[in-house]
Amino acid sequence: MAKYVLGMDFGTLSARALVAEVGTGRELGTATMEYRHAVMDRQLPGGKILPPDFALQHPQDYIDCMKAIIPQAIASAGIEKDDIIGLGLDFTSCTIVPVDENGTPLCMKAEWADEPHAYFKLWKHHGAQEEANRMTELALQREEKFLARYGGKVSSEWMLPKVWETLRRAPQVYQAADSFMEAGDWLVFLLTGKRTHNCTMAGYKAMWHKREGYPSKEYLRALDPRLENVFEEKYPGEVLPVGTCAGTVTEKAAREFGLPQGCAVAVANIDAHVSLPPAGLTGSGEMLMIMGTSTCHIMLGDEEKVVPGMCGAVEDGVVPGLIGFEAGQSCVGDHFDWYVKNCLHAAYAAEAEARGISPHVLLSEKAGALRPGESGLVALDWWNGNRSVLVDVDLTGLMIGLTLQTRPEEIYRALIEATAYGTRKIIDTFEQSGVGIQALYACGGISQKNALMMQIYADVTGRSIRIARSKQTPALGSAMFGAVAAGSARGGYDTIQDAAREMGGTLDIVYEPVPEHRAVYEQLYAEYERLHDLFGRGEEDMMKRLKAIRNRARA
Amino acid sequence: MAKYVLGMDFGTLSARALVAEVGTGRELGTATMEYRHAVMDRQLPGGKILPPDFALQHPQDYIDCMKAIIPQAIASAGIEKDDIIGLGLDFTSCTIVPVDENGTPLCMKAEWADEPHAYFKLWKHHGAQEEANRMTELALQREEKFLARYGGKVSSEWMLPKVWETLRRAPQVYQAADSFMEAGDWLVFLLTGKRTHNCTMAGYKAMWHKREGYPSKEYLRALDPRLENVFEEKYPGEVLPVGTCAGTVTEKAAREFGLPQGCAVAVANIDAHVSLPPAGLTGSGEMLMIMGTSTCHIMLGDEEKVVPGMCGAVEDGVVPGLIGFEAGQSCVGDHFDWYVKNCLHAAYAAEAEARGISPHVLLSEKAGALRPGESGLVALDWWNGNRSVLVDVDLTGLMIGLTLQTRPEEIYRALIEATAYGTRKIIDTFEQSGVGIQALYACGGISQKNALMMQIYADVTGRSIRIARSKQTPALGSAMFGAVAAGSARGGYDTIQDAAREMGGTLDIVYEPVPEHRAVYEQLYAEYERLHDLFGRGEEDMMKRLKAIRNRARA
Repeated sequence: MAKYVLGMDFGTLSARALVAEVGTGRELGTATMEYRHAVMDRQLPGGKILPPDFALQHPQDYIDCMKAIIPQAIASAGIEKDDIIGLGLDFTSCTIVPVDENGTPLCMKAEWADEPHAYFKLWKHHGAQEEANRMTELALQREEKFLARYGGKVSSEWMLPKVWETLRRAPQVYQAADSFMEAGDWLVFLLTGKRTHNCTMAGYKAMWHKREGYPSKEYLRALDPRLENVFEEKYPGEVLPVGTCAGTVTEKAAREFGLPQGCAVAVANIDAHVSLPPAGLTGSGEMLMIMGTSTCHIMLGDEEKVVPGMCGAVEDGVVPGLIGFEAGQSCVGDHFDWYVKNCLHAAYAAEAEARGISPHVLLSEKAGALRPGESGLVALDWWNGNRSVLVDVDLTGLMIGLTLQTRPEEIYRALIEATAYGTRKIIDTFEQSGVGIQALYACGGISQKNALMMQIYADVTGRSIRIARSKQTPALGSAMFGAVAAGSARGGYDTIQDAAREMGGTLDIVYEPVPEHRAVYEQLYAEYERLHDLFGRGEEDMMKRLKAIRNRARA
Repeated sequence: MAKYVLGMDFGTLSARALVAEVGTGRELGTATMEYRHAVMDRQLPGGKILPPDFALQHPQDYIDCMKAIIPQAIASAGIEKDDIIGLGLDFTSCTIVPVDENGTPLCMKAEWADEPHAYFKLWKHHGAQEEANRMTELALQREEKFLARYGGKVSSEWMLPKVWETLRRAPQVYQAADSFMEAGDWLVFLLTGKRTHNCTMAGYKAMWHKREGYPSKEYLRALDPRLENVFEEKYPGEVLPVGTCAGTVTEKAAREFGLPQGCAVAVANIDAHVSLPPAGLTGSGEMLMIMGTSTCHIMLGDEEKVVPGMCGAVEDGVVPGLIGFEAGQSCVGDHFDWYVKNCLHAAYAAEAEARGISPHVLLSEKAGALRPGESGLVALDWWNGNRSVLVDVDLTGLMIGLTLQTRPEEIYRALIEATAYGTRKIIDTFEQSGVGIQALYACGGISQKNALMMQIYADVTGRSIRIARSKQTPALGSAMFGAVAAGSARGGYDTIQDAAREMGGTLDIVYEPVPEHRAVYEQLYAEYERLHDLFGRGEEDMMKRLKAIRNRARA
């Protein structure tokens, strides 16, 4: 008798539910829904205007999505809901909210409805830059060990800057909060009635370490005396490895969301980190590129190493027993979208329309007819700053080699190549730090849609690239962790490795580096590296000076 | 009784005739016509295929144009042709042809009709690069003094490389040639029966110096023993200052072209250099920017100075008695045309069409709404190499500061600003070399059409800019030199200064630097200079390495 698992993937603008078959990974049914309030970056539902760097979300949207997509996915799978043995979910992170002693987000209570800090601060809420800067400064000053695990810089997107921002800007909210919860943990709480911390979010976003715990009280006190006990007081609870069963679906949740009561629920996970098992990856030495608007590089290793410019290294954070390293590029799909939105020539737009293909397909087709090096162009892929390995949001894009003969497809290809060089730089940095990378994998829309791009990545990195089979790796990964939460006794798995072996895998296609292309790209990459170091490592700080001029001009 | 003068301007693709009134400069009639064979860069009229760097023209086209446009211009002016007292003409240069003892271009004789080297080699014929390189090399080795007057590098566009190319590649043509003639001098010969050399073409393109003459026989012999006496044998005759009367219209020419017999004809001139008097400029310390696809900067000085990266410094070459300095930027209008041809976004194209305006007008309008520095962008204007002050065709374009927020008008404005920085660099170099620039003037289509660009130039250079009143400065300038050739006794002028005072002038508008803009542009120009020196002076030779990679990839 077949058993099924349910995975839910909560992205920035929508949520998806997926029903998969245990044992095969077959994807039987799916449903998606957009959040009604999307990202609130201008005003609250009641009309209150938000500061420029705010990005908030409404918890009711998450609830409404679950109510809709769970029954839809089950129905479209054509299965009995009682055959679902486990479920898991992943969420963007750090997306965090203050809750009362009942676990109710403060924004859902009438008295706080017009208070921005009472809402979920989405991962890309950037209101806490001042707090993040101060945290970095103090950590450097005190030589805090944790900083090296996070690329030497605290991001304003993380938990503590966001919570501290609330304490500083809206102390009454901080006071009223029983605690703060990650959106993923909060949804698990809605389903199970249990408050849990998953080690992925805690590790990558709240600076938790399996052996060292959270940052020291001395550090926290030095930041702000009121923060000394912030983790005990406002972020209490044990941190659980991925795949742990957080609890089972309560009678209330079963009724509300159309789930089988008692079904096992895994602790929450992050969308990128949950994507390795669906690609069949659970061992060290394999890097997965989760490619979308940006690219997240997740990598498993046996030992904790300091790799310059990583976003985090967390034990058990991806697969229990291994160190999960995270790195990233902040502008990949966004790069090409920027091009199409701002530079797509009218003639190319017309040609794409006439042929009924997207401009990206047309440009990739034309770019694919070029030989490596033929454009004479090299670009730095820093249109949105550099996440790894420089960890510097103030860097900007650059293109060199333009002539009156330069054509649109040459520019488009140079943008693709730039992101490939950026990935190569990350791989080289891992290897130079003692974290070996034997194999390269990719998932996410671009990886299945753009063969030219994957071939260029293979040529530039000099590595074979395999593509995850699933088109919805995060949701499938969450479902697989649900199967682990259920355990083998209930028809699931005891380890994520077992689940990955049976339910994960890659497509048949393998992109192999072409030797002649590699030779040319070695030369071009040397030029990229020269620009990278020249403009990225402080030798020539022009990008920052130009941003400063720009900011003054706009002020 | 009013007197009139006729000016003819022979451009790359068409010729224009203009009738102007002596005493006022009023432009009464004009006519233009395109060359039937345009630029022959693929094949000869008989079908013979040309090598890739060839750019030839057909003398019959020039004759046909004169036959058509002279009578048309006179008719449209509504004057009697006998009231024309003088005429002048300017031509692109060096545009050169081998002629027989009767002054007939060899290509007009049946036996040479299929021989490429028997045709006019247009200024932009680039078949003689090897010869030019060898000339530079040897001049450096022998420390030839002339080289410093030409920016330290011999251009393949000049007379001697082109003639030497004929000698090396088609010795039979060289043998058969009685001499070689510049197109401008040849047309003056057609009109007057007199063979003359004008000092503008001889000085800027044949390396003639008023006191030192042509390059030494030792140098020429070392280049190629057959060249030792090339100037006496194949380029004979006195070099005459601008405004000199070359002769008068012959009876045959009067009949053929509809001109009054006996009318004074000035020696030929070059289109850029002839444009200063129509702007009212005949004194030292004033720079004129002739703005088109590229920009030519012509500047008058009292003393000969060595200015790095000039295209030439010639005594009497612009105005008798003064040194005419020439510098240039190889990519100005071409810069914006490249953008529109390759990057004009479909939405902008649609908006321009809906409003019935050119994309350039739309982009300038949107770019004009931006504040200086607001884009955070800086570009190097080297899409077509750098003419002055680096004299390096292998440099390429660069843009820095791109972000996901960068919009089309910001890029367009950055391209305008880049050309302004390039002009500023030329001005600064002149000043640092002891050639002071008190006032800045502009002529050419862009200068009257694009107010934003002229304002940016004023802001970047920190100088007031005045615009020549005439829309056809070369033709008017040629007409004015025709008036000087006629002399005051015949109702013209004795000096070009007198002509400029009465017939030249500027529009009422003056572009004044805005202090707040200047302050920002000082900062941005410092960044441009840093890039200019970094990538242009050999510290970072990336552009050349990328071109080498490109050339290998295309081979």
